[in-house]
Amino acid sequence: MTKSELTRSYRDYIACLNKRDWNSLGRFVHENAKHNGELLGLSGYRKMLEKNVSDIPDLSFNVELLIAEPPYIASRLRFDCTPKEMFLNLSVLGQKISFAENVFYEFLDLKIVQVWSIIDKAVIEAQLLHH
Amino acid sequence: MTKSELTRSYRDYIACLNKRDWNSLGRFVHENAKHNGELLGLSGYRKMLEKNVSDIPDLSFNVELLIAEPPYIASRLRFDCTPKEMFLNLSVLGQKISFAENVFYEFLDLKIVQVWSIIDKAVIEAQLLHH
Repeated sequence: MTKSELTRSYRDYIACLNKRDWNSLGRFVHENAKHNGELLGLSGYRKMLEKNVSDIPDLSFNVELLIAEPPYIASRLRFDCTPKEMFLNLSVLGQKISFAENVFYEFLDLKIVQVWSIIDKAVIEAQLLHH
Repeated sequence: MTKSELTRSYRDYIACLNKRDWNSLGRFVHENAKHNGELLGLSGYRKMLEKNVSDIPDLSFNVELLIAEPPYIASRLRFDCTPKEMFLNLSVLGQKISFAENVFYEFLDLKIVQVWSIIDKAVIEAQLLHH
């Protein structure tokens, strides 16, 4: 698993999410994938993404910074989107928000097997306050 | 700036914070350091750290995961600590909390010149709710 294989696979994964190509998700996500310590598996991971997109129809993943050291990737993602109702227990209610996610991935067999994600909730709260 | 130079410098930086050795901070932090988009400089960066430690006397930085690709480092830090009063606008008031920070650093001349940090506020909120 070289660094260039890893980053290519990761960028293909992000493109897969942005195309809502859920049937291809198994090319990028391991059957035993964990997300923030919770064993979701491929099916649970897909359900999580489908729920995200249902809650936020204009969700789009943009890689701002990508750091690769096999078998790990760290990525800073940028989101400019419009959650329909609640997001992270905040009443966003159709307001446009902009926030980052700092996320780490561990790969196994070129697939994501573990994710440690943190979303910048404080920045979203500040945007809702100033609305 | 090799990967091993970078990770050694970063681990020395973390040790410096845990020793509260502020006079050595200039060995690790650039004069023009930015933190989450804000130009703090070395003096502002030191002030930020001194305030963190004043608010959280038992603050200790523990590296859980370290990913290096010069000139960048990504680090997942773990904190088990006891903020005296407010933290991230939350009334912690001496409760012991545990949370992670996913943080990216850009280095210049082996010094930290830019930081993109996100703290897991949602996890802290959940701990305060269940208290």
